[in-house]
Amino acid sequence: MNNLDYPLPVLELVAALKQLPGIGTRGAERMALWMLQGHMGEAESIARTIGQAADSVTPCPVCGFFSTAEAPCEACRDEERDARTICVVEQATDVIPIERSSAYRGLYHCLGGKLSPLDDVEPEDLNIRSLVERVAGQPGCEVILATGSDVEGEATATYLHHLLKALDCKISRPAQGLPAGSGLSHADTLTLMKALEGRTVL
Amino acid sequence: MNNLDYPLPVLELVAALKQLPGIGTRGAERMALWMLQGHMGEAESIARTIGQAADSVTPCPVCGFFSTAEAPCEACRDEERDARTICVVEQATDVIPIERSSAYRGLYHCLGGKLSPLDDVEPEDLNIRSLVERVAGQPGCEVILATGSDVEGEATATYLHHLLKALDCKISRPAQGLPAGSGLSHADTLTLMKALEGRTVL
Repeated sequence: MNNLDYPLPVLELVAALKQLPGIGTRGAERMALWMLQGHMGEAESIARTIGQAADSVTPCPVCGFFSTAEAPCEACRDEERDARTICVVEQATDVIPIERSSAYRGLYHCLGGKLSPLDDVEPEDLNIRSLVERVAGQPGCEVILATGSDVEGEATATYLHHLLKALDCKISRPAQGLPAGSGLSHADTLTLMKALEGRTVL
Repeated sequence: MNNLDYPLPVLELVAALKQLPGIGTRGAERMALWMLQGHMGEAESIARTIGQAADSVTPCPVCGFFSTAEAPCEACRDEERDARTICVVEQATDVIPIERSSAYRGLYHCLGGKLSPLDDVEPEDLNIRSLVERVAGQPGCEVILATGSDVEGEATATYLHHLLKALDCKISRPAQGLPAGSGLSHADTLTLMKALEGRTVL
């Protein structure tokens, strides 16, 4: 006799679910068995929703944020937003945390990544040309370079700064310093250095 | 202006993924964004695999384990297995851990749950009638009542014991005691009591 295992379609389902980010063998097995034990209706509705999202969600042709069916995204269509401020972020997913902070009322530009020669990400792989066109078409605007404060994020900001400073625009970068609600003892050396360098006079 | 949020199909996708067991809002958001950021191909193949599993996986008509397309499952078809021993488990998912232990060479019977009056699970909700028929058709067989050692599992085993003892079969229950590789100091009182009660003479 052979040791029993799940039938092939179940094993295939487990292998498929394991591709999801943050899901290991255990988690995938748990999901597959949940589906097979009386939740196939929910599972098929999840599968349908994935297909619908695939069909209807596209990058906004203006800023690169998520949009539906060819039209510019909600932010680009919102006439109450300050069109003279463009916040440049690495990924479309960086937009929502900024929105949730309610600290920003302008438009966005999603690069689709950050410069990283080691991973073969060169300027032409990012939405940089469309950013230059947007800034050129909006003289006197402010561009906030809100890429990450890691090495690649800083390099990307530096590259964009050099590229944009020839245009008629103000260029800024978010402040670096101590995170809110955190003591000095928990800050790393570089954060402390940046916080002291950028200290504000009271 | 309104605070920006993900477009509706993305929010629907997040809500759909949140139904999966063990997945909260953060995890669902992470999965949805992974799909939308260049992994829609993988996501759609996962969706297809779910559909295939839904179409091809059914409970085995004999024992209730997972089977494909109407046929009895691999275990029920395996002629090298000891057909005179039936291990009764609560769920089809309990079968694989037993198989992986390589400690059992007989057949299975999956009840599809355990008796639980508080949750409205009565004997007629479980695959008990088919178990009685199997045992009646196999005089002199051994039935191992491998339901859990929690209150409902014990109650289910007691109920099945009363039902089956009129038939020509040997009825047993897996030993209870200390888990392998664990010291006395980590055992709870009830486990210790069961381990001492069921002590073996050397």
